[in-house]
Amino acid sequence: MTGKLIGVGLGPGDPELMTQKAHRLIAGAAVVAYPALESGSSFAREIAAGSIPLGAEELVIRIPMTVERGPAQAAYDRGAADIAKHLDAGRDVVVLCEGDPFFYGSFMYLFSRLAERYETEVVPGVTSVTTCAAVAGRPLTARNDVLTIIPGPLDSPEMKAKIEAAGAVAIMKVGRHLGRIRALLTDMGLAASATFVARASLPAQQVLPLARAPDPAPYFSMILITKGEDPWLN
Amino acid sequence: MTGKLIGVGLGPGDPELMTQKAHRLIAGAAVVAYPALESGSSFAREIAAGSIPLGAEELVIRIPMTVERGPAQAAYDRGAADIAKHLDAGRDVVVLCEGDPFFYGSFMYLFSRLAERYETEVVPGVTSVTTCAAVAGRPLTARNDVLTIIPGPLDSPEMKAKIEAAGAVAIMKVGRHLGRIRALLTDMGLAASATFVARASLPAQQVLPLARAPDPAPYFSMILITKGEDPWLN
Repeated sequence: MTGKLIGVGLGPGDPELMTQKAHRLIAGAAVVAYPALESGSSFAREIAAGSIPLGAEELVIRIPMTVERGPAQAAYDRGAADIAKHLDAGRDVVVLCEGDPFFYGSFMYLFSRLAERYETEVVPGVTSVTTCAAVAGRPLTARNDVLTIIPGPLDSPEMKAKIEAAGAVAIMKVGRHLGRIRALLTDMGLAASATFVARASLPAQQVLPLARAPDPAPYFSMILITKGEDPWLN
Repeated sequence: MTGKLIGVGLGPGDPELMTQKAHRLIAGAAVVAYPALESGSSFAREIAAGSIPLGAEELVIRIPMTVERGPAQAAYDRGAADIAKHLDAGRDVVVLCEGDPFFYGSFMYLFSRLAERYETEVVPGVTSVTTCAAVAGRPLTARNDVLTIIPGPLDSPEMKAKIEAAGAVAIMKVGRHLGRIRALLTDMGLAASATFVARASLPAQQVLPLARAPDPAPYFSMILITKGEDPWLN
């Protein structure tokens, strides 16, 4: 009997926004795996720290932050091989994922390498999108509103086209792209009503009108835009 | 001192996918409020049932399912007035919301009536979108992918335009619109790769190729589409 690969979404950062299922699976794990920066720090491990049992074996997958994909792919190859050894020995492996595993999550790179060979379960988590809306007191969508989620690194012409075709918009991973995106939204007449949220649900959380957002912004930051009617008006 | 209005996301249906924060707030509540059908059944209450303390006062907001908005608006007016009485008396009120409160959530209609007058907190929840992806084993978005979320009742020409402009697509609340949407996706050449998911995370969950989806579908059902490259390929 081989073990089971379990990708667990941890939510946006506040450990209390982990689901009860995530907590149970992590607290019962013999082996946990998670991505970390080369310096060693891991946001995923920080979120889950209170749930990881003493004595659990921890597989740290150090991801180089390079522009080329090759070094990161090689790191996921090695991480998948380390995980596979435990699965082959019949031990389940719980992989920790910030946010939700299938929503811009690093777990996908392990899933693509292992899911065809091993039983796999994915546990969804609270995303940063609805968390930012919640802490900003800004409803996202009601009734027949369409929501488009756009990664901040997308180039400006494509981002502009996506926003023009959209209803409500959330722009994720704003970070160093803040200045460029703010200029684009200003040109489009959408900057005045936009809200900036950084590190939602964490102690360092910031909620600001876009005009006052810091440039560069933290990596974990988002811009929320509502086009047309506010979704929560009667 | 007036009480606090707390909108709590319950996630997609499996009570274990409630966050730890949702469980704590509900378990400590003296007053809980939730929407229900006129027949009395309430999906929100079913999800949270194991967390609601014995002796909590329950405010049931019965929502008529009519095409005109007037009767539902009147029901939310009455519900908001009932909640306001408790808030005025200094009691916090926890409002139960399926999924996430600000993502097509009924809580918005109470938020719009009460948030300017009372301290309000919104607790995000796991959405059906990432849950459907998780149970289907189908990653939504990676890297610079754009995700568009479309409500099933949207008319076909507008839905077609939104899908053409989109990257990955999730069509929510498919229900009785299944046949029309399936025909549209077939015309667009997108039906073959589409996945249908109903009642994700519940015992009656279904994951099927779109071609085999039941028509009409359950109200809580979704279609997932990936255009172009699969997001989880290396």
